[in-house]
Amino acid sequence: MSGLWFTDKWTEKTHFSIEVTKQLHKEYTGFQQAEFFDSEEYGRFFTLDGYMMMTEKDEFMYHDMIVHVPMACNPTAKKVLVIGGGDGATVRELTRYESIEKIVMVDIDERVVRLCQEHIPSTSHKLTDPRVTLLFQDGVKFVADSADGEYDLIIVDSTEPFSVGEGLFSTEFYKNCYRILADNGILVNQHESPYYDFFAQAMKNAHNKLKNIFPISKVYQLYVPTYPSGHWLFGFASKTVDPIAGQQREAWEKFGLNTKYYNSDLHAASFALPTYVKEMLENSDK
Amino acid sequence: MSGLWFTDKWTEKTHFSIEVTKQLHKEYTGFQQAEFFDSEEYGRFFTLDGYMMMTEKDEFMYHDMIVHVPMACNPTAKKVLVIGGGDGATVRELTRYESIEKIVMVDIDERVVRLCQEHIPSTSHKLTDPRVTLLFQDGVKFVADSADGEYDLIIVDSTEPFSVGEGLFSTEFYKNCYRILADNGILVNQHESPYYDFFAQAMKNAHNKLKNIFPISKVYQLYVPTYPSGHWLFGFASKTVDPIAGQQREAWEKFGLNTKYYNSDLHAASFALPTYVKEMLENSDK
Repeated sequence: MSGLWFTDKWTEKTHFSIEVTKQLHKEYTGFQQAEFFDSEEYGRFFTLDGYMMMTEKDEFMYHDMIVHVPMACNPTAKKVLVIGGGDGATVRELTRYESIEKIVMVDIDERVVRLCQEHIPSTSHKLTDPRVTLLFQDGVKFVADSADGEYDLIIVDSTEPFSVGEGLFSTEFYKNCYRILADNGILVNQHESPYYDFFAQAMKNAHNKLKNIFPISKVYQLYVPTYPSGHWLFGFASKTVDPIAGQQREAWEKFGLNTKYYNSDLHAASFALPTYVKEMLENSDK
Repeated sequence: MSGLWFTDKWTEKTHFSIEVTKQLHKEYTGFQQAEFFDSEEYGRFFTLDGYMMMTEKDEFMYHDMIVHVPMACNPTAKKVLVIGGGDGATVRELTRYESIEKIVMVDIDERVVRLCQEHIPSTSHKLTDPRVTLLFQDGVKFVADSADGEYDLIIVDSTEPFSVGEGLFSTEFYKNCYRILADNGILVNQHESPYYDFFAQAMKNAHNKLKNIFPISKVYQLYVPTYPSGHWLFGFASKTVDPIAGQQREAWEKFGLNTKYYNSDLHAASFALPTYVKEMLENSDK
């Protein structure tokens, strides 16, 4: 027993607390307060402005589902854009596909990326892959300046829709994502959660904007026990590719990837949402 | 801000805490310590021996999935046995089926049932339905004394596999459940959780016993944010009915039930498990 605890305020009236063995680092990056910790139950983890970003125990759930679901729908993707994703694990999963030729990762906060490279090699060790271009700038501006139809896949691995991450939930940003995606391109974004009011409102806002821009806009779910409620969502948007009818099961299985969370049966299943979540999304404009 | 918090120890090193507006009641029942609380975020909730049993905010998730999944596979079920389920919500969901003729609920702890009737009418108000027989005795002994083939559906809505609930995870108990089920009968049981070691071990133990007794033994998942990790599992076991091939979608939809969590698309999807959970279940004898 260390007696030292990190507490994430899931709501004002709900706290999730983890015993910490050691605080490794604390730094204000110019954008946000970054802190790194060791723990027995969750391994190493880090927080931004006091919110849990990822733990070594369950990051595989989040990163499997944000990468392998779209890759199974567009297994020939060559050029991928990652917005955010400072811990490097989204890029790590992408680099497992030898067929991907170029990965551009745009994170506004270089210090977070460098600190993850220093403290969490298990997620960040593929950021030096020769196919990866790291850019430290505003993702909103980056997509505005990118060429039409340039990317096969865009993954928005963002923080919550306030402060640093706010622009990554804006109509302008989603419209530019649409423009810079190829015809069979896919946008996947961190889509918040249905259970607590604050996150549910953010989920509805994101979905309402996306469904007005993309002809195909669906939502899928996953477990991330260290995020508020453990019930998390990603958005899947495309001009032409339906995530269920468009699953290329055999092509994906040919990659021969071992995945601890994602599998071909789970793919379509993760789009089957509880009724109360479906209703929230259907009424997202209210 | 009341300053009063209930803390559930999900593990020694992980605490989940809820702000409480009022402690309504505390009583040692002879079996366990029962406590009832009011909260703003979760409505009324109750605990046994310090473990969260249910909250008004999310009990619909648990009770939808423990009742409607088997009922969609055996929509002509007439005689149902509920073991445990003291809050009454499993019976509440069962009474929505006019076609069910008899519900026997066996809970070892009468005081918990009476306290739920007093403090949580939203879950317990159907315990007075004329089709319901309430028996306060040991469920292990009850199934041992029941006749062969007597029940169409058995729902084991138990606490964790220690102290009061321990026998409800035993081979002897499962064997008697098998014996007293009709040929097309179904056993559904509270099956613990894969994320934290303690619960994962309980999950593996339960599954290992069930799959050695029932020809068909599968596991499905659901979100219950106020249970440890939020990722919960139920077991589905039967002599003849497969939960996926045997889903009677149209027959179930004819009941016309509004359900906040369960729906026909979610039914088969909930049996698609993350790879790490599948592997734990496949290796449950190790």
